[in-house]
This record gives sequence, C-alpha cells and structure tokens, in this order.
Amino acid sequence: MISSEMLRLGTSRSVIRELFEYGNQRAAVVGREHVFDFSLGNPSVPAPPEVAALLAKLVCEDPVSLHGYTSAPGAPEVRAAVAEDLNRRFAAGVSADHLYMTAGAAAALSACFKALALPGDEFVAIAPFFPEYRCFVEQGAGAKLVVCPAAQDFQIDLSALEGCLNEHTKAVIVNSPNNPSGAVYTRETLTALADLLRDASARYGHPIYLISDEPYREIVYGVEVPWLPALYGNTLVCYSWSKSLSLPGQRIGYALVPPCVEDWQQVYAAVCGAGRALGYVNAPALFQRVVAQLPGNTADLSVYRENRDTLYNALVEAGYECPRPDGAFYLFPAVPGGDAGAFSRRAMEKDLLVVPGDGFGCPGHVRISYCVQPEMLRRSLELFRRLARSE
Amino acid sequence: MISSEMLRLGTSRSVIRELFEYGNQRAAVVGREHVFDFSLGNPSVPAPPEVAALLAKLVCEDPVSLHGYTSAPGAPEVRAAVAEDLNRRFAAGVSADHLYMTAGAAAALSACFKALALPGDEFVAIAPFFPEYRCFVEQGAGAKLVVCPAAQDFQIDLSALEGCLNEHTKAVIVNSPNNPSGAVYTRETLTALADLLRDASARYGHPIYLISDEPYREIVYGVEVPWLPALYGNTLVCYSWSKSLSLPGQRIGYALVPPCVEDWQQVYAAVCGAGRALGYVNAPALFQRVVAQLPGNTADLSVYRENRDTLYNALVEAGYECPRPDGAFYLFPAVPGGDAGAFSRRAMEKDLLVVPGDGFGCPGHVRISYCVQPEMLRRSLELFRRLARSE
Repeated sequence: MISSEMLRLGTSRSVIRELFEYGNQRAAVVGREHVFDFSLGNPSVPAPPEVAALLAKLVCEDPVSLHGYTSAPGAPEVRAAVAEDLNRRFAAGVSADHLYMTAGAAAALSACFKALALPGDEFVAIAPFFPEYRCFVEQGAGAKLVVCPAAQDFQIDLSALEGCLNEHTKAVIVNSPNNPSGAVYTRETLTALADLLRDASARYGHPIYLISDEPYREIVYGVEVPWLPALYGNTLVCYSWSKSLSLPGQRIGYALVPPCVEDWQQVYAAVCGAGRALGYVNAPALFQRVVAQLPGNTADLSVYRENRDTLYNALVEAGYECPRPDGAFYLFPAVPGGDAGAFSRRAMEKDLLVVPGDGFGCPGHVRISYCVQPEMLRRSLELFRRLARSE
Repeated sequence: MISSEMLRLGTSRSVIRELFEYGNQRAAVVGREHVFDFSLGNPSVPAPPEVAALLAKLVCEDPVSLHGYTSAPGAPEVRAAVAEDLNRRFAAGVSADHLYMTAGAAAALSACFKALALPGDEFVAIAPFFPEYRCFVEQGAGAKLVVCPAAQDFQIDLSALEGCLNEHTKAVIVNSPNNPSGAVYTRETLTALADLLRDASARYGHPIYLISDEPYREIVYGVEVPWLPALYGNTLVCYSWSKSLSLPGQRIGYALVPPCVEDWQQVYAAVCGAGRALGYVNAPALFQRVVAQLPGNTADLSVYRENRDTLYNALVEAGYECPRPDGAFYLFPAVPGGDAGAFSRRAMEKDLLVVPGDGFGCPGHVRISYCVQPEMLRRSLELFRRLARSE
C-alpha cells in the first residue's frame, strides 16, 4: 500500500553506493591502504583554507540572523554576489532576480525538471550520463527520460540526438565536463547542438530547453568550457560548489534562469514554485554566505590533473581504449572483452573498485573516479595492468 | 508550455511571505521599531551558545571529512546519537536504522508523503493547519489533501475526522504543538484519535498512517506532549531543530519510521527512495554533526512563554476570543466581526502585521506569531486593543 516506485528507489541502492559500502567493509578487513576505491565522486582535496577562515568568522556573528530563514530563493545579497561573479567571468548579464539558490545541483535539477514537466513530456539525456537524472525526471517530475546513445569520442552524436527529439521533447540535459566520461563539449559541438535545438524548437512549435548541469565547470585541463546561455538562449544552468570548493556534504548550489530564456520571469517563478513543492525552504543559510564571500575561489584542483595524466597514460599504455578526458575527475575506458560487470567483479577480487557503465548508458565501459590520493593511484596501476591482461 | 501548477506556486507567494516583505518595506520608511511584525514564525531567540562553541570547534577539523558527502540517510554516528536521545527521552526503542536525516521538517514531510502516496490517495490535515501541507501533498506527492474542520478548542473534532476517512485515506497529519493555534493535543485527544484510526484501518483493510509533524515539540508551557508512536503504531515522526535550537535557515531535521510501524523496513526504504526522487542527497553535513553533539539542548525558550502570557492576557481582556495556547509561539484568535482579511488590512494600516487564517483552514481567525522581542510586543498591545474596538 506504499509507493512501489519509492520502495524500489530506496532498496535498489545505486551500484556506486554499493561498491563504496563494500570498500568500507574490505578496508576494515584488509586495511584502508589496501583498498583501491575508485567508486565515488567524493572530492579528495580539502576545501581551500579560506573556507575554514570564513566559517570561523561567520560562526561568531549574530546567531539570529546567521541561522535564520533566508528568502526562499536565497538571501538577496548572496544572489547579487553570485550574479556579479557570473557577469565578471562570463558576461552573463544576470542579476539576483535570475538566481535560485539550492541545496546543491541535484536540487537545482529537480526543481528545473519539475518546473518544466507536463504529463507526457520527454527529457533527453546524452549517454554517458549521471544515472540519478532518471529518478529526478521520472519519479521526481513525472516525465520520461530518453537516452541519446553515446558518440565514440563522448562528444554528442548530433544525428542520434536529432532522432531522439519529437513533439514531446521538453528539454535536453547536458553535463560538461562530463560525469562519467570526463569529456568537455567543445564550442563546435555546442554550437551545432544549439543550431539543432533551434531548428527542432521551430519544427515542433515550442521551446526545447537546454538544462546544463555544471558542477565540474572549474575542473578542466587547459580547454574552454563555453558559457551555454551565450550560445543558446533557452538554457537553464544548474550549478553546485560541491566539487569546486570541495563542499559536497553541505549542499549548496543554484539554478539560473538567465534573461535570454523566453518568458524568463515565468520560468524562474515556476522553478521557485517547484522547489517549494519538493519541500525545499531555503538553501542552507550558512553556506549561502560562504559561497557568496568566496567568488572565484576553488580548492587546489591541480591534483586531479596530475591524477588524470598518471592514470590516462598508464591505461592507454596497458591497452585500454579511452578518449583523453579534459575535465572532471573521471576516466571511462572500454574494458577488454566488453563485459563491464565481469571486469568490475574481477577488479573487486583485487580490492579495486570501479563502477560498470551500464547505469550511465554505456555498457562495456567502467567509471574510474580518480579523486583519490596520488600515492594510492600509483600503487593501483599494476592492478589495472593485470586486469587488462585478464590476470 | 511550462507547468502551470509550479508557476502558480512560484507566483502566488504565501500570504505570510507577502506580509513579511511588506513589513520590511515599511521598516525602511517608518523605522524598524515602528513596525509590529507578527507575520513570520522565525525564532526570535538566538541559538544557544553551545552551537557557536561547537561550530568553532568543528570548522577546525579535517575539511575532507567535515564537508564530504554523508550516507544518504545521514551519517551513521549522527543517526545513532539521535536515536539514543529519543530512547532516553521517550523510550522510543529506535536505532540509527529507523532515522532518515533531512533538510528540515519540510523535507521529512515531503519524503513521507511521497513514499506513501499512490494515485487517488487522500491525506487528511486537521484545521487549523500549516498551509504548505497542501503543496507538499498535492504538487509534491500527487495525492489529495482533505481538510478536517477545526474543533472549537483546537483539539480534534473526532466525529468530523471520522467523516473525512474513507477507503482512499492514506494518512492523517497531526501537528502538535500546533501552528497556527498553539494547541497541544492532550493524551485524551490522541488516545481517542488512535482508537479511531485503528478502527478505520480495520474497516478499510489497510493501515492509515499518522504523520506527526513535531517542530514545536520542545516549545510547550507546562503540559505534556505525548510520544505518538507509543499510542499508535503506524506513526511516522517528522522533526526539525529549526525552532528548538533556533536554526531554521540551516535546514536540519529527520523522518523517523519506528519499529512499531507495520513493515517498517519497507516504509523506511520508501522514505529514503522518495528523498532520492525529490533530489535530496544528504542532509547538510555540518549541522548533522551539530545536532548529534547537542542532544537535549535548546535555545532559551522562556521568552516565548513570557510573550504568550503577555499577549494572551491582553487579548482576552480586550475581548478577543481565543483558547489559551499551551505551546508553539502562535496565538490564533477569532477577530471581532469575523472578517480576518479586513482585520488584517486594518492592522496593516497601523503597521501591525498578522496573518488571516483562511490559508490555515480557519476563516475568521488571524495568526499572531509572538516570536518577537517582548518590548515590541508590549508596545503593540494598545494597537490590538484599538483594533478590537474597531478604531
């Protein structure tokens, strides 16, 4: 007599979480240093020291205002500071009125999906994609998730995408830098995507929105991450400071409805209304203040680049097939033999944890989260080599 | 082409928020000290000093674990500490496995509603009730909210409630101490309620759950707040530290599915699954640690009692009809003449802000949130007297 869908979501824990829990159990048996856990996208570098310094200062302030409710979309001065930062970096042309502060990117995405979804609507995810999109779209917003097959180089297969669009398409979700592939969509890819969506919007007689999930925007290795609203007007941006400031547990992010979105006031109001319907009251107040006062600050992200180089070079040398990722902290190689589940199980026998790609829409690949200590990463390389030789 | 329901929720800001914003505008014109704002349930007493001391200590700890993701239901040691506190205070007989840490009571309620709701289900709220229940149940969980009319004394009109139950009833929501009436349901009321729900569950052949929304549990003036799961097995408890520790902006609370709930493991899993579908990843990590380490601690709540006495005595003397509230920080008098909207507008002309009761399911009443400075409250009394005389 309870919701079987919610029961299923609550019992079928994500494969990622299962592996992570298994890793903790093994660590208790064989020692933490002998478990090579590449399962979780939990930042391995600390928040920058400015966060601790600012928190130490803030927690001495007047507790009634520090801990009080903020406006539902976020404290006005916080939204103004975030807008100013976006204007400085991307010439975004936004103000506090376009920002809805959220409990991380998951809340921002959930609010955007629910704001836009009508019964029968379809949202398109481009493989490989973050598996939680499916439950946010289907169980959260009551719409349908359509998966566009992956391109060989993990950019976008535009003709495959075109085949996914129809009169029911409400939005396309993009996530660049990408979880799990580490791909960063090029300006060329995104310009072509924008053209395709403009054509499709005209063809089907309604806007097809682009929803850009950007928690990895700052984790990028020498390539450009184009500002999407400048390329395609009907773009909603979802952001989180989880990765850039290494604050994933505190849940702080935003949804942005920029003025180039058609009828942006209405879309923005619907996003706020959806957040309300989902039970969000305001984004955590203390961390609203933290992110507003540290514009442009990031954790020391250089270790991710070092890890990317170490792991990518070793994997390619060992014979794995893998486009070189330009961002995020994931590698997503094809596994020898093509059975990702079997590969993952063989890896587990060596206490090496990687996530099969099936849930990401790419069977035959595994996700390796290299947000780990470089020393552990180096010790793991021999295991990856042995796995490549089916040892 | 976007959701008209979400647009409506986002544009029809709650009357409470409208009044609050109006109060801020007036404060800029006539000075904060000349605005008598009784609109918002924002705690007026500071968090206890132990919160600042603990935060100062925590923010010096290892940032990777301090700011990292926790398990989705909350850090195991946090849930164990909260369970222990409930066992000590209420002999609750619960463990970490029964607790799902949430971003406040709103998130807990939303997850419980969505976990239980099947299409066509009805949830019953007892007037007067917190208006956001409606959007959590209807837009959040896709079920129907049924309102049971208020009893004269703001306890529960059991025969009216019985008339609200049918084969579609999934749950009854109770909120004691109550927002907006301040009523605390007596043990006698709750025992009769439990009997009624047991009978109805048997009659309709499925459990009718009790969902107990308890953010005001500790704000009570010399009367008992019975532990509901001890009276009725199929009870889910939703709690928030927003009021007891004066931390509303930080969003920290829990949903409890105690072992006396039939098939509690499945119900608990569905609550976790619903939280996932709604985009909640984990409750804010820092404040999970805070509440776990301050069991039984509260802000200095004595000012609320002082305010209750001052305001209640003055209102009754001025001729207002109002049951004496035993908890929370609200008074909910009937207004002279019976038109709450007109009364509220006349009050606004005096820069005194009170919320019409219509949204709470009780036209003819106004809610007075007396979580304000006692000095301001005393200065306001003459205005309430003049309003009673229609001056």
